[in-house]
Amino acid sequence: MTDAPFRFTLLHQDGHARRGEMTTPHGVVQTPAFMPVGTRGAVKAITHRDLEDMGAEIILGNTYHLYLKPGDDLIARAGGLHEFMGWNRPILTDSGGYQIFSLADRRRISDEGAEFRSHLDGSLHLLTPERATDIQAQLGSDIAMVLDECIATPSSLQDARPAMERSVRWAARARARWLQLRDAPASLPGVVVANPGQAQFGIIQGATHPDLRTESVQATVEIGFEAYAIGGLSVGEPAEIMYEVVAHTAPQLPHDRPRYLMGSGMPDDLIESVARGIDLFDCVLPTRNARNGQLLTRSGPLVIKNARYAEDPLPPDPGCGCYTCRHFSRAYLRHLYMAGEMTAATLNTVHNLYFYLDTMRRIREAIKFNTFETLRLEFRRTFSRRSQRL
Amino acid sequence: MTDAPFRFTLLHQDGHARRGEMTTPHGVVQTPAFMPVGTRGAVKAITHRDLEDMGAEIILGNTYHLYLKPGDDLIARAGGLHEFMGWNRPILTDSGGYQIFSLADRRRISDEGAEFRSHLDGSLHLLTPERATDIQAQLGSDIAMVLDECIATPSSLQDARPAMERSVRWAARARARWLQLRDAPASLPGVVVANPGQAQFGIIQGATHPDLRTESVQATVEIGFEAYAIGGLSVGEPAEIMYEVVAHTAPQLPHDRPRYLMGSGMPDDLIESVARGIDLFDCVLPTRNARNGQLLTRSGPLVIKNARYAEDPLPPDPGCGCYTCRHFSRAYLRHLYMAGEMTAATLNTVHNLYFYLDTMRRIREAIKFNTFETLRLEFRRTFSRRSQRL
Repeated sequence: MTDAPFRFTLLHQDGHARRGEMTTPHGVVQTPAFMPVGTRGAVKAITHRDLEDMGAEIILGNTYHLYLKPGDDLIARAGGLHEFMGWNRPILTDSGGYQIFSLADRRRISDEGAEFRSHLDGSLHLLTPERATDIQAQLGSDIAMVLDECIATPSSLQDARPAMERSVRWAARARARWLQLRDAPASLPGVVVANPGQAQFGIIQGATHPDLRTESVQATVEIGFEAYAIGGLSVGEPAEIMYEVVAHTAPQLPHDRPRYLMGSGMPDDLIESVARGIDLFDCVLPTRNARNGQLLTRSGPLVIKNARYAEDPLPPDPGCGCYTCRHFSRAYLRHLYMAGEMTAATLNTVHNLYFYLDTMRRIREAIKFNTFETLRLEFRRTFSRRSQRL
Repeated sequence: MTDAPFRFTLLHQDGHARRGEMTTPHGVVQTPAFMPVGTRGAVKAITHRDLEDMGAEIILGNTYHLYLKPGDDLIARAGGLHEFMGWNRPILTDSGGYQIFSLADRRRISDEGAEFRSHLDGSLHLLTPERATDIQAQLGSDIAMVLDECIATPSSLQDARPAMERSVRWAARARARWLQLRDAPASLPGVVVANPGQAQFGIIQGATHPDLRTESVQATVEIGFEAYAIGGLSVGEPAEIMYEVVAHTAPQLPHDRPRYLMGSGMPDDLIESVARGIDLFDCVLPTRNARNGQLLTRSGPLVIKNARYAEDPLPPDPGCGCYTCRHFSRAYLRHLYMAGEMTAATLNTVHNLYFYLDTMRRIREAIKFNTFETLRLEFRRTFSRRSQRL
């Protein structure tokens, strides 16, 4: 770990698609990049070694879950999240806001912050923009996110405006706190700054309303962060709407900073968003779908429990180079899944994450050689979201 | 895979402890050896790569489970169990008898065989000595076991004698079938011999009665098998009783064949049984206990959920070289276990199996250097079965 400040180098551009390098205290991330989700300090069903072998350069940790258990104080005393979980590559933490807003009737939002009851024991907690910043300082992630207000979709302009404006006010408070922790940590003796080189990203809100998005960009960039994320998407809206908002918002963000589309998406979402200028992604789909027996292939999802695979000697995706595809047949994977063996979740997760990371590698190569549009068209032609009869 | 017949070479002896090499169609096994249990074609919670990395040279598959799901016919069509599950090292299959006898009121034993109802769907099945042999021929394991009658412990002489005698009659029928499959496979067109080099082991019964054990050895060796196992132990009797039966039985078995103690045991059981002439072991304890959060160390079991480990930065066993101990703290493993993360089961299983396999490596080295008795005494002095406050 170095204290070298966060840095982003734009290496090449092909249309709106960008090839870059993001430097963090725990190493460099080649962008566009996908971040596997390690909710509670572990990417579900696999080991760090699996992640390293498949080339994961950065993972995401969920502040809400880690704050509740085992707690940011405990993690800070262990030396931060990297040290605690034995993962030495970059980590981005979310602010906890998204999980809290998902608690529905167990939370209450005010200008002060988000009051919520733990899903674990019902205990009452208040997450303010300052507290979310402190917790992430104690976790010591390489990239912290500001607390923002997420709202349901679709949202009217009347509902979306106040949430966007509150998110901007919260962003200013979160940034002030982050600067205080950086420049005068002694003034906040209760907070351990586990990673002095931590960067902080702002989040653009505004639902599907272009004017609100533009306002949010202007106000958030005015505050000034190491980089910016687009929030409030991938929450159930049609893909075309998401692409429109991304196409509207991304180009307004600083050209020399990475742009992170939060919570997205399916493989085609990744390609379409890269085409609109996005550099970073995270999503639970590859890991969650793996545990549900859905394997992603270049032509689309394969549902392993289907009887048609009972005696199929082929790997999930004959063109794939992952550990699972190099060693196991659909017949065996189906057997493991039907028998309820945990190893099914492991092998399926290895495949799906490899598929995502490999897709990102192909995207990066294509941008480098100015063939991104070809890759995009090929993907559109060959990949379908419908379950495939392979 | 070669058709080379099963072979055992006794390399060295230190007291009654034996250092050997067991050759099978899928490779050589250094003995004394421990076989991780891969019940349904997978060792629970880990991948084959984990097994290979920790040096597992042979695993066990359960005929009962594989017969019911996905079925031995399907596995035979896939080319046998090795091909089906993508494991290229030796496999031993049990006969299914032990699982069936565990079904209690769902089974009925007669001279013909064991009639039972599937624990999955209640369907009725009859497992005869011939059928158990056929199923294992179709699975294509490197070592097949004869069907034997297991009884509850303790058993009176009156109960134990007929079961032992029936086991001998069944062993003769199983051997006759095995010879027919080897010498005249065309006479049994319904059975696919997936592994022509498969060996068959006989099983010694007789509960805790020395005279019955001696009779069982004589009758079973008279039938003639590639090697012999001691069955009916590790079923709840005190360790000292088991050691006595092993000490009585093992020396009567052919000196030039491996001796397999079925279903045993704790680490000290392994050492004490090697001291009495045993070469092969299998047991679900390291994998099952791992899933229950019990980690084995050189001083004894560590219960990871204990609050004392919440902030413990040490690995489970600081002297251990496994992947888990090289990378993760007790604090992190406790967090994963308490959070219910599947990765807890994986990392704990990696550690416990490594501990078993490493104990076997130490045993083999000690025999080679004639220091086995020193290792045994050191183990007795330092290892306790009681949960440790580490």
